[in-house]
Amino acid sequence: MSDRIYARYLVETADDPRRAVEVMAGEQSSGTFVAVPGETPELKARAGARVERLTPLEDVPAPSLPGAKKGTAYHRCEVELSWPIANLGPSLPNLVATVAGNLFELQQFSGLRILDIDLPPAFAARYQGPQFGIEGTRRLSGVASGPLIGTIVKPSVGLSPEGTADLVEVLAKGGIDFIKDDELQADGEYCPFEARARAVMAVIDRHADATGKRIMYAHNVTGDLDEMRRRHDLVAALGGTCIMASLNSVGLVGMIELRRHAQLPIHAHRNGWGYLSRHPLLGWSYPAWSKLWRLAGADHMHVNGLRNKFSEPDDSVIVSAKSLQTPMFDDRPCIAMPVFSSGQAAGQAGDTYRALGNADLIYAAGGGIMAHPGGAAAGVASLRQAWDAAMSGVALTEHARSHRELEVALEALAR
Amino acid sequence: MSDRIYARYLVETADDPRRAVEVMAGEQSSGTFVAVPGETPELKARAGARVERLTPLEDVPAPSLPGAKKGTAYHRCEVELSWPIANLGPSLPNLVATVAGNLFELQQFSGLRILDIDLPPAFAARYQGPQFGIEGTRRLSGVASGPLIGTIVKPSVGLSPEGTADLVEVLAKGGIDFIKDDELQADGEYCPFEARARAVMAVIDRHADATGKRIMYAHNVTGDLDEMRRRHDLVAALGGTCIMASLNSVGLVGMIELRRHAQLPIHAHRNGWGYLSRHPLLGWSYPAWSKLWRLAGADHMHVNGLRNKFSEPDDSVIVSAKSLQTPMFDDRPCIAMPVFSSGQAAGQAGDTYRALGNADLIYAAGGGIMAHPGGAAAGVASLRQAWDAAMSGVALTEHARSHRELEVALEALAR
Repeated sequence: MSDRIYARYLVETADDPRRAVEVMAGEQSSGTFVAVPGETPELKARAGARVERLTPLEDVPAPSLPGAKKGTAYHRCEVELSWPIANLGPSLPNLVATVAGNLFELQQFSGLRILDIDLPPAFAARYQGPQFGIEGTRRLSGVASGPLIGTIVKPSVGLSPEGTADLVEVLAKGGIDFIKDDELQADGEYCPFEARARAVMAVIDRHADATGKRIMYAHNVTGDLDEMRRRHDLVAALGGTCIMASLNSVGLVGMIELRRHAQLPIHAHRNGWGYLSRHPLLGWSYPAWSKLWRLAGADHMHVNGLRNKFSEPDDSVIVSAKSLQTPMFDDRPCIAMPVFSSGQAAGQAGDTYRALGNADLIYAAGGGIMAHPGGAAAGVASLRQAWDAAMSGVALTEHARSHRELEVALEALAR
Repeated sequence: MSDRIYARYLVETADDPRRAVEVMAGEQSSGTFVAVPGETPELKARAGARVERLTPLEDVPAPSLPGAKKGTAYHRCEVELSWPIANLGPSLPNLVATVAGNLFELQQFSGLRILDIDLPPAFAARYQGPQFGIEGTRRLSGVASGPLIGTIVKPSVGLSPEGTADLVEVLAKGGIDFIKDDELQADGEYCPFEARARAVMAVIDRHADATGKRIMYAHNVTGDLDEMRRRHDLVAALGGTCIMASLNSVGLVGMIELRRHAQLPIHAHRNGWGYLSRHPLLGWSYPAWSKLWRLAGADHMHVNGLRNKFSEPDDSVIVSAKSLQTPMFDDRPCIAMPVFSSGQAAGQAGDTYRALGNADLIYAAGGGIMAHPGGAAAGVASLRQAWDAAMSGVALTEHARSHRELEVALEALAR
């Protein structure tokens, strides 16, 4: 195994690409814009970033981002850089400054996006990774196979603790596996965290006592560190089986600390992801970005879903989900369970299963459950039927002929 | 004072702008894509986000970002939304999910950038803000007026602790006020944090004993939380007067915790800022983003500099710097000291002073000091002379006639 850190980028430059990526490697290691006396050949050999590979792609006539040096054509390339881990040590926060620091502002580039990272084993020894992952989530939720059928509390904000608990009761009776707080739901005046957690867990407890099924509810603990720890402890004491944190709110240090403290799976929400990724020539690809959080300890990670209500295309959703299920290290695979959501209903189950190749996921639907003409129970049933059809290779419409809830769902979707 | 949170955005949509921003307000509060039974008029009145203002700007023929709904023209607007603080409570992490959460992915928009935020006083009561700011930094560094003349250790990585200390010695003899670790410098095998801090502080101590001047050195403590606390404590014990943290590496929770622990000014590095901001129709403006970190406790914040080596234009640099010096709250102004850097030399002092209107800043130069033909001392002297000229309204070339180091610097720059 190597003791180097690797990162792949998509870049666009009007400059000679080789020269441009040498500047990038220099800026992110021992070099700077002017020659400095201390940068000896020995120092450069020891600490310099290395251009491992440079693959030319297409040329485009106009720059993708402003502020770059002008030229007659803008050359797109894929480039791989590497750094000795000795430059920084196996530290996630310092890694970010190295692979995704000042380089996005370089004038040499009219586009720069980080595509993937590959870390040496010292990182696996240092960070904990997911504590539960797919297997632990199945164990705690009692869903041995197939997707966890889930939903999100809506309205996102505005419900009282009792109103939230009433909704959970409806969903529980409907046979749901998983429910999450919306990421907007925090610790507001009308729905304080503690009152909400207690009200929700009372319903979940009663339902578990009556049916043997303990619904996994992801309580949004996002907040300052002491709050997150306290909220986690309350959820654990109440018999809860999951907490949720918004990654872009909390940050890496917060997530690392939450993982150190946690005895429950961490449902990692990526809200804000759009500002990191929506321009194709800027920012982060999900496989690169999610590796930071997987190593830090995310058990579940959001990927949108096929034909979602957001701007992300389907192929990107599947690349993201597959990346979460691909091991990072031999002895610490850091597999996170993908969470499909956003406009998900019965119609996407088959395509999702075929594209991903498995059903190790959380399938979160809002309208797909609550807007079913037969109510929440019929909504949940229709999603399970759709996934049964997908997993046994039966066409959805054929399966619908013998499964009433699915039939109604498909009729409603076709309207 | 209001108990609402306000945020301004630049948006671009092919849809009817009023309808699009109503979707945005709904998605970020009580609404969702389908009507849900619980969203009563009372709930909406209590918890819904409000569109406060919608100002049409120009139309453009093509979408700025992919994935949006298509149209014949794309309408740009400035919009202001507001939320009741009761939705979330005065929490910085939860604020981020509310004002900068899932909205960047909405199909309604082919462009969406957050321009500014305005927070109710409950946030000022909850968070500490900068502990030292401009006044405390002047007191600790002994620089009563004018900019702190600063520099960054280069090569960024690769120097040993002793090599770093040797460079600090040269700079100390040159009369520098402020030195910082590069953001790439962390706790690597060849330059461990503790050995580097000890070696550097030994030089700074000797220099202080000999001259009475204690150079402010920003030690990069970026790392996991326990590491940051330990490193802070070491720096404080060694008589150091500043620590540095990379904001995008550490995240909000990490920064809030670091501030709670810190007895020293926090030099906040924004590396990675490019991926948050470089596309003009996506992401964050600096006035909005920097308010999060000012409130969390950043004492110094980077803004690039005029005619910098990066892609940021000059007007943006000045808007950023001015925003840091504009009070956030009456009783907690949260003023952070702007750090000008990147290609800064004698030539930009006058324009910087005229544009900003004061010299309450750190002026960090690399080549402007080390590449001066007369050496580091002459480099530092030339920068002070340039700022003296700027602050007394004397033309740079005129001042250079009676100040040799400045004259040489300008000659070197003209070559």
